[in-house]
Order: sequence, then structure tokens, then C-alpha cells
Amino acid sequence: MKGGTDQYSYVQNSSLQRRGIDLSQVMINEAIAKDINVENQLMNNPNTIFRVVDLGCSVGSNSLVNDIIEAIDLKIKSYFQGLEPMQCITSEFHVYFNDKTSNDFNTLFALIPLKKRYFAAGVPGSFHGRLFPRASLYIVNSSTALHWLSRVPKEVGDINSSAWNKGKIHYNNASNEVLQAYSAQYVMDMEAFLLARGHEIIRGGLMFILVPPMGDGTLVSQTGLGLQADVLGSCFMEMAKMVTFMYSKSHYCNGQ
Amino acid sequence: MKGGTDQYSYVQNSSLQRRGIDLSQVMINEAIAKDINVENQLMNNPNTIFRVVDLGCSVGSNSLVNDIIEAIDLKIKSYFQGLEPMQCITSEFHVYFNDKTSNDFNTLFALIPLKKRYFAAGVPGSFHGRLFPRASLYIVNSSTALHWLSRVPKEVGDINSSAWNKGKIHYNNASNEVLQAYSAQYVMDMEAFLLARGHEIIRGGLMFILVPPMGDGTLVSQTGLGLQADVLGSCFMEMAKMVTFMYSKSHYCNGQ
Repeated sequence: MKGGTDQYSYVQNSSLQRRGIDLSQVMINEAIAKDINVENQLMNNPNTIFRVVDLGCSVGSNSLVNDIIEAIDLKIKSYFQGLEPMQCITSEFHVYFNDKTSNDFNTLFALIPLKKRYFAAGVPGSFHGRLFPRASLYIVNSSTALHWLSRVPKEVGDINSSAWNKGKIHYNNASNEVLQAYSAQYVMDMEAFLLARGHEIIRGGLMFILVPPMGDGTLVSQTGLGLQADVLGSCFMEMAKMVTFMYSKSHYCNGQ
Repeated sequence: MKGGTDQYSYVQNSSLQRRGIDLSQVMINEAIAKDINVENQLMNNPNTIFRVVDLGCSVGSNSLVNDIIEAIDLKIKSYFQGLEPMQCITSEFHVYFNDKTSNDFNTLFALIPLKKRYFAAGVPGSFHGRLFPRASLYIVNSSTALHWLSRVPKEVGDINSSAWNKGKIHYNNASNEVLQAYSAQYVMDMEAFLLARGHEIIRGGLMFILVPPMGDGTLVSQTGLGLQADVLGSCFMEMAKMVTFMYSKSHYCNGQ
């Protein structure tokens, strides 16, 4: 993702992601109201620190974190309402913003508001591996991020493999073997993701995952993403050819 | 501090800070061996997560974190040595690297090794205020950072105040009133720092502070820092005068 806040940055070009997040907000609020047992947590430890993470948050500007915290806070307040003032304490939230190490965390941190209901931290690293100590997270959220693979499947770049993708960057209009290679990589990545989260989330915690879906029977080539991947891929291939051509030319000139 | 890793960056120009840190390492190891009751922690909760923070770490390259973790790990291992294998678990560390929001966290994160004994996070914000949930930190470290004030005392920039510092950036060779103003600011800042840490450190935790000292009876003007501040300050004043002169000139030309 492009960092910073200029006209070509992710911040200025992610309204589609924002729309998906807005649509999922109601479902998240409902899930927290129904499935989170804040009372249990606070009965065991009134000083519970509620740790929330946004995995693959980019620069965080589209983050659902505020809505999640508000929904939990509502439950905490209603729990304390029935108690004596002496027993009431202000619950604290620790929010972690995660993305790959190459993410622009400087922009992310600059965009976090000074006045907020939580303590903030940035966590660099791939969510396909462990990022947090065991049993330390209460809520895990990942919006429009988990569809990214950890790597290009090896076979699709191997000219001698039956799954060779002819230099293309996506499986749109590709052979079954290519589709299988991408699919197998996704299964491996999801297993690694779920294994890591299984260690990190506490008992009674919740995880929300929002990924771009495809209707049953829809072909990738019928989606905007398929079209974009084709255009972008052919641009990359043209650029690569130009560099190769220029390199050969300069090599030829130097040889004179 | 200048970010990045080029020849003028903090990374390439902080060997003095490194020397101070190296000298304090033995004392820190001794303190951990003597004053940290790891056994108590693990008896209460064998799953204890040891949370360590480096406050004002800049890009973290001079951080003492590895030495601190090694010293605690040694104590953990010796505790588990006397127990049955079934009772032994691998203790986990969560390390937080803190500095002001304007710090170059992108460089910091790129310099954190991939293979390490801890989970890492960056925490943007001033250590003169709260940064973490209550009772969540086990070890707090701050090396060559706490001598920085949170702000320039208001009076020293006020031409009508008896503590006016004539535009200088430091209290070297200044009047008693200027010294008093800086001193009062330091007291306020330290109070704010200690109050925040008082909330954040758990019972039985430890805090290490390394600040550049001055021998009894030594004048600031006799130190390298005093001399540097004078040279740097006069450069800033010359630059400011040049900008003012250029602005007046351009204003004059535009008025023609």
C-alpha cells in the first residue's frame, strides 16, 4: 500500500474498503452485544485490560477500532451500573495496529487522534505468523486484508511447472493448475493465520474477518478485481520488457 | 532526532549514548539478578507475560532490551529447572519501543531483527504522560532520553519576563532566573513522568533510568553539552536573522 496522505496514497484511495467496513459495523455491534461476556471478565478481574487488534490496518484511517471499543464500553458501563460506586473502575483498552514491517507506520501514528479512549501501539509483522503473547487479545479484527497471500505460489512462476502462469500476476482466466496453486497457498496461509490467532486470543474473545467475497457461480473475470488485475499485470509486463530492452541496449553500447 | 540510517542519522551518530548504555549494562544485570522476583510472578501465574518498555528509544538501535530480556530469561530458566518438565512453559516477552509520534518508527521497525526472543510493538507519544494500561509493565527502561524537557519553559521566551533568555536555546551562562525556569520545568516533567509510570508498572517491577550527569561543582559551560548548545544556538539565531532579512527584502521588492 502507498503510504503518506497525498492524492495517490491508500488514505485517499480506499473508499471501497471504507464502504465494506461501514456495512459490517452493524453486524459487529450485534456480535459484541450478544457474544461477548464482559461481565465474566470483570467478575474474574475488575482491572481487566481489554486488548484489541486491527490486523492489516494499513495506515489505520479505515479502522473499525473506535466502533468496537464503543460497543464493549457500553457493556462495561451497564455491568458497573448495578454496582456500588466503590466497586466501579474505569476499564482500560490497549489497541494494537498491525501491518507488515514495510507499512507506513509514521503516517499511521500521525493519524491516531490525541484524545482517545485507548492506549495505542503499532505492531510490525505478517499476520500469517505469531505477533502477540499467548492469551493476550480480547478482540481481533481484520478488514479487507486477509485476502492477501503471504507469497506468490512457487509453481506459478516456474516455467517448467504445469501451473506456470505465463508471467501474469493473478489467476484471472488461468488454467485449473494455476487456480489450484493459488488455492493451496490460501489454505496454507489461513491455517497459519488461525493457528497464530488460536494462541493469541483469550477464552471468550472474538474475531471479526471481512474479506471481499464473490457470489456463487461468478467468474473472477466478471469481477472488477479480475479486470484490474489483468490491466495492472499487463502494465507490469510492458514495464519489465522496457527495462530489459533498455538494459540490453546499454549493455550493447558499453560493449562498443 | 534525525531518522533513517544515512551518515547524518541518529543511528550513525549516537556512539556516546551507546557508551553510556554499555557502561550501565552491568548495573542493570546486577539489579535484575538481585531485585526481580521472577519466582513470585511465575508461582502466581506460570503464563505471566513479561512486558518491557524502552522509553525514548529513538530508532532503537542502542536499545538495552536484549540484555534486559536475557537477564530475566536466566532467572526464569533457573526457576523452571527445579520443576517437573510438565510444569515448565516458555515464558513470553512483549517489548514496547516508545518515542514521540514524530520519531522515525519506520526505520525503528526495519531494524528490529526477525529472529528474536520477544514480540515487538511501537508506542508513539510523550513519556511525560500515560502510554500504557495500568499495572501492565514489568520493566521500564529509559536511556539518555529523560534529560529532554516536554517543552521550553514559557518565561524564557517572554521578552517581558525576568527569566527571558535572549533568544538562546539553552541555560548555559544564563541568569539565575533562567536556570530556575528550566529547573521548575524539569521538576514538573519528572513529576508527570513518575506519576504515569506509577500507574503503569506492576508491583515488583523495576525501572532503569540513565541520564547524562554532571559532577558536583561543574558548571554547564565547562561541559561539552554547554559548548555545543552555544554553537548550535548561535547558528539557529543567525539562520533566523537571514530568513527575516530575506523576507523583508522580498516584501520590499513585492511592494515596488
